[in-house]
Amino acid sequence: MFTTKRDDTICALSTASGVAAIGVIRISGKETFPISEKLFSKKLSDKKSHTVHFGTIKKDGRVVDEVVITIFKGPNSFTGEDTVEISCHGSPYIEEQILQACLDNGCRMAEPGEFTMRGFMNGKMDLSQAEAVADLISSSSKASHQLAMHQMRGGFSKDISALREKLIHFASMIELELDFSEEDVEFADRGDLKELVDEIRKVLRKLVDSFATGNVLKNGVPVTIVGAPNMGKSTLLNALLNDNRAIVSEIAGTTRDVIEDEMSIGGVGFRFIDTAGIRETSDTIETMGIEKTFEKVNQASIVLYMVDAVDSTRKEIIEVIEKFREKIDDKDKQLVIVANKIDKAGDTENVEKKFTGIENVIFLSALTRSNLDHLENKLLETVNTGVLNREESIVTNARHYEALSKALSSLDDVRTGLDNNITGDFLAIDIRKSLHHLGEITGEITTDDLLGNIFSKFCIGK
Amino acid sequence: MFTTKRDDTICALSTASGVAAIGVIRISGKETFPISEKLFSKKLSDKKSHTVHFGTIKKDGRVVDEVVITIFKGPNSFTGEDTVEISCHGSPYIEEQILQACLDNGCRMAEPGEFTMRGFMNGKMDLSQAEAVADLISSSSKASHQLAMHQMRGGFSKDISALREKLIHFASMIELELDFSEEDVEFADRGDLKELVDEIRKVLRKLVDSFATGNVLKNGVPVTIVGAPNMGKSTLLNALLNDNRAIVSEIAGTTRDVIEDEMSIGGVGFRFIDTAGIRETSDTIETMGIEKTFEKVNQASIVLYMVDAVDSTRKEIIEVIEKFREKIDDKDKQLVIVANKIDKAGDTENVEKKFTGIENVIFLSALTRSNLDHLENKLLETVNTGVLNREESIVTNARHYEALSKALSSLDDVRTGLDNNITGDFLAIDIRKSLHHLGEITGEITTDDLLGNIFSKFCIGK
Repeated sequence: MFTTKRDDTICALSTASGVAAIGVIRISGKETFPISEKLFSKKLSDKKSHTVHFGTIKKDGRVVDEVVITIFKGPNSFTGEDTVEISCHGSPYIEEQILQACLDNGCRMAEPGEFTMRGFMNGKMDLSQAEAVADLISSSSKASHQLAMHQMRGGFSKDISALREKLIHFASMIELELDFSEEDVEFADRGDLKELVDEIRKVLRKLVDSFATGNVLKNGVPVTIVGAPNMGKSTLLNALLNDNRAIVSEIAGTTRDVIEDEMSIGGVGFRFIDTAGIRETSDTIETMGIEKTFEKVNQASIVLYMVDAVDSTRKEIIEVIEKFREKIDDKDKQLVIVANKIDKAGDTENVEKKFTGIENVIFLSALTRSNLDHLENKLLETVNTGVLNREESIVTNARHYEALSKALSSLDDVRTGLDNNITGDFLAIDIRKSLHHLGEITGEITTDDLLGNIFSKFCIGK
Repeated sequence: MFTTKRDDTICALSTASGVAAIGVIRISGKETFPISEKLFSKKLSDKKSHTVHFGTIKKDGRVVDEVVITIFKGPNSFTGEDTVEISCHGSPYIEEQILQACLDNGCRMAEPGEFTMRGFMNGKMDLSQAEAVADLISSSSKASHQLAMHQMRGGFSKDISALREKLIHFASMIELELDFSEEDVEFADRGDLKELVDEIRKVLRKLVDSFATGNVLKNGVPVTIVGAPNMGKSTLLNALLNDNRAIVSEIAGTTRDVIEDEMSIGGVGFRFIDTAGIRETSDTIETMGIEKTFEKVNQASIVLYMVDAVDSTRKEIIEVIEKFREKIDDKDKQLVIVANKIDKAGDTENVEKKFTGIENVIFLSALTRSNLDHLENKLLETVNTGVLNREESIVTNARHYEALSKALSSLDDVRTGLDNNITGDFLAIDIRKSLHHLGEITGEITTDDLLGNIFSKFCIGK
């Protein structure tokens, strides 16, 4: 189980597993230097912080590796504790041997995220910054990376903290009034309080509203591809994938596990969801497949509806699109009509004429990839890519969203209370509530459960 | 193509790819500091070697990551050149961005092993030590690790170099004699030369002979499991695997790709080769399968022949073993009879009686895993595990083996020549030959082809 126990010294492999040039093992805690010196060929505790030292690691009297050890003396380390990083040869066998030697000499294996948790515990960062570390590591597009980086470097938690401080001041003033309640004094100016509450509500409202965008940018914009069978859905998906994986494969050694149909277009992540072909049917099993398709349609931000631009008549095209529109729950959903197979068209003018009056049509050939870029631009257009270029705070974390919403709701109550001139004791309760929720975001208020839940999602070694 | 060009500045991801806490990008070459300073938020060239610095990396004006950079100033680095190691968050996206920023600012991607090659070129290690780096990284058992470590730390190349120096001295003496050939002087004492040649031959002979052991220890001892169908071959393999993978899986995060039936028992690597069941057959296709089995038997150092200890009669057992023995090419091959399924035996004494007079029998149950350790001990016994505890030089590299063999053969010629009192000019030719081959091992004599061949087998980033 996850525990916030922090007196012991922890170790873990911090680099990815696998054969490589270098592997890094991290040790952190009170006993870092005594333990390291038992393994390493040189004394370390008398060396300066932020220096590196070459030497050998021994286990059971045998040299396991020639390594370079970096020293970070607390509090000037990621965890705030004494820390060393052992940079060894990237052999899983050697890494295992060194970790074993660490364990033999009094370390214990770190739990997921435990280094970062110690950093948080020791005041090196607030909770939302700690959470951003995990987001940063798992970010796979320019958009998600930028959101995580912004948050890790302070992001909105700085603002939240400052506003919370001001609110705390008012809360104590009001509570002070309660102590002198018989004297009917007012230490907290109600006008100023209203102003502050409105300011905070404005900030919170903006953050709460940003969650929809943030969530999509973080997890990739869901795009569902639908259409009758054999309209070229899979061909389109492959064409898009081929077009947008090149960036990754140009640099050898950085290949990563990519979900089959997730890709980054112009720095924004998109999750493409392929579906079973839609057609009128009385077959129960096929109907179930089609029901699933509509489920996926409803999850999507953008729906690509594919039609055969050449073999279908204008009547058929208008009919299927109308039918499809009727079945979608959200009528405002972005629907893009992909008029495929234009490579087969001798007369493009004639083809385009069929689609007159239909909105949002992209003519392309998934097979020959012609006009593929038109579709990509269309996809980017539908996402507000403006956020990528603004240093604006966007909430991407469901936990933050929840806390912000609750804080906002309590502040709405405070505001209503102020308007109705309710007594200080009721005001104080609502203010305390919103302080609590704001504190949850930055970690000023935490529980072991909350921390356990957050850090258990980290990778080991971080 | 591989090139020994070394004026430019190279970069690569040096840690394994994949999402992790830390990733390390290495830059080495003349322009290391100017390039790094274009990316990094602090000046580096004025800092001391072997120090680390926290700051941000920017690409296209945007912060890509908060990193720690370690400075190694040439010649005090692995490559002998100015080197920095950028320790960033272990996100493939971030690693890609930083590498891209390095490339944009004048680095080129390192070729496999290029950092090590530069280390060799700059005299940081000899060629056999450089080769050991690759062996070390890929070592997966105590035995192969120890051999690679021994070689990386000098190993036999120190001895070879010293002996070669002495031999060079004699060679020049003899060549000096040739200059004064009309005066019939003898600068090189033939008695001393004989002594030296014998000394070197003794060392070389020992090294050449060690190759058989070294090769097996490096690549894993091949063990073929044979027997009639349904004797429990796969059950045995699984039982052995389960027994010997625990070490790895105890430490989370170090899981690695393991070839299905390779495992380390008591620090020695074994490669288990499963085969199709052997039985008398007239079916051509099945006969081909059985032929394959015998091919694998002939490749093995140890053959485990499985029989049913309970259901087979003594006569049947003796018969199949005899037949099998007849078909093996190498009659001295280690054959271990595995008497399986003893869990079914009510009366163990009766079972053991069946095998009286048969050598090398291990009674066990692959199913219940009882006596599995008897088999493991037997396997270890058959390998000379003594080498693991001696700091003795063992040749594991086919290239070294070839060069050593050729050097030895030339020295044999020198010795014969000395015995026959041949003239100095002929002696000199044979001595030069052996000097050449000895020089190939340590890299005093190299060609671009040879280097290309050696370093192209490295991983990128090393």
